[in-house]
Amino acid sequence: MPASLTEHMLGDIIAENQELALHNHQHFNESGCFAVNLSSAPGAGKTSLLEKSLPFLSKESSCAVIEGDMIGELDAERLRKHGVEVFQINTGKACHLDAQMVARLLHIKNMRNVDFLFIENVGNLVCPARFPLGEHKRVVLLSVSEGDDKPLKYPAILQHADVVLLTKCDLLPYVDFDLPLAIDRIHKLNPGATCIAVSAKNGRGIEDWLHWLREEEIKVLARIHH
Amino acid sequence: MPASLTEHMLGDIIAENQELALHNHQHFNESGCFAVNLSSAPGAGKTSLLEKSLPFLSKESSCAVIEGDMIGELDAERLRKHGVEVFQINTGKACHLDAQMVARLLHIKNMRNVDFLFIENVGNLVCPARFPLGEHKRVVLLSVSEGDDKPLKYPAILQHADVVLLTKCDLLPYVDFDLPLAIDRIHKLNPGATCIAVSAKNGRGIEDWLHWLREEEIKVLARIHH
Repeated sequence: MPASLTEHMLGDIIAENQELALHNHQHFNESGCFAVNLSSAPGAGKTSLLEKSLPFLSKESSCAVIEGDMIGELDAERLRKHGVEVFQINTGKACHLDAQMVARLLHIKNMRNVDFLFIENVGNLVCPARFPLGEHKRVVLLSVSEGDDKPLKYPAILQHADVVLLTKCDLLPYVDFDLPLAIDRIHKLNPGATCIAVSAKNGRGIEDWLHWLREEEIKVLARIHH
Repeated sequence: MPASLTEHMLGDIIAENQELALHNHQHFNESGCFAVNLSSAPGAGKTSLLEKSLPFLSKESSCAVIEGDMIGELDAERLRKHGVEVFQINTGKACHLDAQMVARLLHIKNMRNVDFLFIENVGNLVCPARFPLGEHKRVVLLSVSEGDDKPLKYPAILQHADVVLLTKCDLLPYVDFDLPLAIDRIHKLNPGATCIAVSAKNGRGIEDWLHWLREEEIKVLARIHH
C-alpha cells in the first residue's frame, strides 16, 4: 500500500474491494463451497502445507485451489500433481490478490462442485490483511525461521486471522524461536485465533489442521443451510 | 501495490517518488555518505546481518541506520545496543519505505558525519522494488529457509539488486535449498548481481560482505569527488 496514496483514494479502493468480497462470499455460500484464504510471508510454506493436506482431504471431498502469484505457475504446477483443479491468478505488479480478481474468476468458473476452496495469496505479510476476498476463514502462516518477533512487527494480518499455523517446526532445534512466546504474542493481538504448530516435512500438527478445517466447514455449511 | 490503482495514478506515485529519491541521492552525495537500501521478506535476517556487521564497520567508520517498520522500534532497539545512531520510520499502513519518508528525515538530520548509512526497509519482497529511496546500492536478502524458487516468483526486486545475500546458510543442512541453483536463477535475472552466501549465526560470508561494502564505498566516494 503506497504511503503517498491519500486516505480518500485508499478509502475508495478498500470500499470497492469490500463490496466485491461480499459478492464473492455470496457466491461461495450459494455454491456450498467452504473458502479459505491463506496468507504469509514469501516462503513460509503455503504450497507445502497444501501439498501435505490435499491428499487427505481429496479422499472424501472435492478440493480446488486459487493460486495467487505475481508471475508464473510454479506453485500451481506443484499442486496439480495432486489431482486437484488449480486456477492461476497472476497479479503482475500487485502485491496481493483482491476481490475483483477472484470475482472475475468466479464469473468463468462457479464453485458448485467444490467442497474446499483454498485461495493461496501472494507472499506478503502486510497488504493481504486489508483485502478480504470473500472467504469464510482466514489462515496466516508464520514460519519458525522468521523469528518469534513477527507478531509484534506485523500485527494487522494476525488480528484478522482465524487460525495461525506456525510452520517449519522441524527447524525448531536449529533456530532461536520461542514457540510458547510466539503463541502468547499472537493471542495478545487476537485472543480467538487457533494456533497450531505444524511441519509439512515431518507431519507434526497436520492432523490438527485437517481437523480444524473439517470442523469449520461443517459449521459454515450448517449456517448456510439454515 | 493495489491492483485497482489505475496506471495513471500509479505512474504519478512512482514519478513523485523518483524525484524525491534523486533529491535524497544528492543529499547523500553532498554529505559524503554511502547509503545502502536493504530489502527482503519478513524475517530473512536484515537486522541480524546489521548486528553482525556494525561492530566491525564501526571500528573504522561512522555508521547509522534508518529503520523502516510498520509499527514499533524493536529492531531499532536491537541495533542501538551496538552504539550506532538509529532513526526509526514507522510506515503505519504502508508496506515499504518511500523517498518522501526518507527526505523528511534528512531535513531534520543531515548525514554529514555518517560514512555508512543502512536503510532497513519493511519486510516485503514486492513493493520496495519500485520505490528507490536515493540509495547508492541495493541489497536484497533471501533466506535459504524461504526456498530456492523465490527468484522465479519475485523477480522484480532481484533485477534491481546490486548484491544478493543468501542468508541463514547455517540452516542449509536442514532445508531443501540448492544454493548453486538459486545463484544461477538470480544471475539469469540479473547477471551483474554479486551473490554472497552468509550466516549471521556462524559468520560465514560476513567477511566477503564487509569487503564488498568497503570496496563499493570507496568507488562511490571517488565518483562523488570527481
